[in-house]
Amino acid sequence: MKGIVYLLCTVVALTGVIVYVARASDHGDGEASPIFAIKMPPGYREWKLISVAHEAGNNNDLRATLGNDLAIKAYREGKLPFPDGTIIARLAWSYVSSEENNAVFGRDQSFVAGAPINVQFMVKDSKRYVATGGWGFAQFKDGKPDDKAQLNTCFPCHKPASARDFVFTHYSP
Amino acid sequence: MKGIVYLLCTVVALTGVIVYVARASDHGDGEASPIFAIKMPPGYREWKLISVAHEAGNNNDLRATLGNDLAIKAYREGKLPFPDGTIIARLAWSYVSSEENNAVFGRDQSFVAGAPINVQFMVKDSKRYVATGGWGFAQFKDGKPDDKAQLNTCFPCHKPASARDFVFTHYSP
Repeated sequence: MKGIVYLLCTVVALTGVIVYVARASDHGDGEASPIFAIKMPPGYREWKLISVAHEAGNNNDLRATLGNDLAIKAYREGKLPFPDGTIIARLAWSYVSSEENNAVFGRDQSFVAGAPINVQFMVKDSKRYVATGGWGFAQFKDGKPDDKAQLNTCFPCHKPASARDFVFTHYSP
Repeated sequence: MKGIVYLLCTVVALTGVIVYVARASDHGDGEASPIFAIKMPPGYREWKLISVAHEAGNNNDLRATLGNDLAIKAYREGKLPFPDGTIIARLAWSYVSSEENNAVFGRDQSFVAGAPINVQFMVKDSKRYVATGGWGFAQFKDGKPDDKAQLNTCFPCHKPASARDFVFTHYSP
């Protein structure tokens, strides 16, 4: 019953858009992001590091993934699927050539994190987000839900990672 | 007296090598790294993230800098110099093209952290390490002091960052 109350899934056949109406997540403060209704998890910036990457795509970013305690524990134990309550944060900054570092190194080799781009979250709740592999997705910019985010495109892209519970990032020791 | 006992500085004029003999740092367990006698700080992998970077130099690495509570506090307050007891950890992994991610993105854009390369530390102790800007330097590989590390070259390279207390990495919010 709770599941039905919280999760109303409407498949709009013509557009192929999956619309969810979910009760606002009790995680976090502030405005909730659309579709999955996730608020920014408090204290995410303090979480432990999972890994880092350079995504040379449209944004060309340097990124760090951080995880709450449940996320880190699951990664280190190598246990899938991630348990309910797992939250993974992906922080991204612009990929910037560092003139001051290059001056010291004597060559152009140093690329550092510039201005923040946005922060994305994956929140595991296997009942609430049953139609998207148990994960809710959110994106924030400057502390607010990012209205440019196309959150209905998150899960289709993550689907190929189904063998790893839809999570791309590996843990770096 | 304590300073003299702990810190014996011998400048070898012909070679230009500065040799320090310091009491083994009471941080950490295991073998101490040479010159600055720093043991691996326990629990460094749990520390909070300072920033990330891609250093396309000899190692071609992706790196994350983590800081203990004193480091993070100083960064966030914008207060220099860093206080004694500050420790900054630089974790580096090889910069690797991710085939599995590229397959999803449909193009070669994803570079992730591969095998660990080494971990470096800067430890602030303005009395013990007075001749190197107050910082001791250490490098570990697979949990042991890295015998390939040329720790006497660390400070000369960091000297240009004197206006920022010899630390290159900026904090990424």
